Amino acid sequence: MNAEKKAVVLLSGGLDSTTVLAIARDQGYRPYALSFRYGQRAVAELEAASRVVSVLGAEEHVIADIDLRVFGGSALTADIDVPKNAHDNTENSGIPITYVPARNTVFLSFALAWAEVLGAQDVFIGVNALDYSGYPDCRPEYIDAYEKMANLATRAGVEGTQQLKIHTPLMEMSKAQIITTGLSLGVDYALTLSCYDPDDSGSACGACDSCVLRLKGFAQAGCTDPVRYRQT
Amino acid sequence: MNAEKKAVVLLSGGLDSTTVLAIARDQGYRPYALSFRYGQRAVAELEAASRVVSVLGAEEHVIADIDLRVFGGSALTADIDVPKNAHDNTENSGIPITYVPARNTVFLSFALAWAEVLGAQDVFIGVNALDYSGYPDCRPEYIDAYEKMANLATRAGVEGTQQLKIHTPLMEMSKAQIITTGLSLGVDYALTLSCYDPDDSGSACGACDSCVLRLKGFAQAGCTDPVRYRQT
Repeated sequence: MNAEKKAVVLLSGGLDSTTVLAIARDQGYRPYALSFRYGQRAVAELEAASRVVSVLGAEEHVIADIDLRVFGGSALTADIDVPKNAHDNTENSGIPITYVPARNTVFLSFALAWAEVLGAQDVFIGVNALDYSGYPDCRPEYIDAYEKMANLATRAGVEGTQQLKIHTPLMEMSKAQIITTGLSLGVDYALTLSCYDPDDSGSACGACDSCVLRLKGFAQAGCTDPVRYRQT
Repeated sequence: MNAEKKAVVLLSGGLDSTTVLAIARDQGYRPYALSFRYGQRAVAELEAASRVVSVLGAEEHVIADIDLRVFGGSALTADIDVPKNAHDNTENSGIPITYVPARNTVFLSFALAWAEVLGAQDVFIGVNALDYSGYPDCRPEYIDAYEKMANLATRAGVEGTQQLKIHTPLMEMSKAQIITTGLSLGVDYALTLSCYDPDDSGSACGACDSCVLRLKGFAQAGCTDPVRYRQT
């Protein structure tokens, strides 16, 4: 087991990253949860992350402030409407317009900084190549390249005393498999929030891409999503 | 020439990054200068960056807020004394204790985000393998690995329409060569600040590693450093 091994776990408060936190704990890691206040409109996401940490537990929970809005460029951070129809939600390339530029690269860079300070060799991230195939920075080849770079960037990597490992336990799972895995580890998905456009009370819209994908996952897993929706 | 080509230029306001901005302009790029407010104590550094932009010119100057202090771990951001003696300034590994964890990785990630929004293919960074050999993220192999990762992280890289290039024009230069290059391009080094520990008026200490390296560079280039020092 990995008892006493520290791991930085990227935690948005969504279904995927919450499952990852449960997996890291189950594998015996001592999780250090890392969330970001990055100019996203969905601050309810951070409240979800805090709820998840209070229930699942973590050695520490850091919310780092970064502001990608200074660069503009995405529906998730810029002041434009979140697309409600999956068919309108891609450009010709098939990459969703909700894509945030370099987001995972920025998030992993902060995780790398914290891992180095902690002396941790392990970072967990809930990227998934199946459901999110349109996101370039959710693919195995990207993660592999990041890991190689990271091992050249740090004291530990250069000295050869520690090799950083980026864990992507959800990479090849369907949404239903992710949910089934989380449930088997006792995750209460009522704590989580996946919606791109929650209302002030934190209720999910049920219509954005993320809600649609989540609802479909629960249906395929044969369960009911315990999260509140303002429309069904 | 590269007229009309946009380039993101990482600009600290120090001697090296200012020289890089002048080189990018000289190569015909339209520079977008990127600085960071990252919890460093030397806010005078950002004032220097603004002075440099106002004189050398840039299409835009963004100062992005990031706070690496949440992770602790370095003399440049934590509340401990800046070392004044180069011989005390390394651990056994030869890596300076002023090293900020994953700093260049974080900075380049923001540059990548901005480049993607701008549709720019070029990022300039003033890393140098000679003077700063103790910093793992200032070496050519690190930059190469970062570039490979970046081209897997973005729409442009995946679509094959644009390949990101990280330019490191100072990589193999001595400090004296950097200064000579900058002077030949008309850089006024009085605008810049290299000191880790400037006083309230912005005068350099003349004693920290960065000052010592800078003064030695000017001496070897056969010039006088026009920056104000509070001790000589």
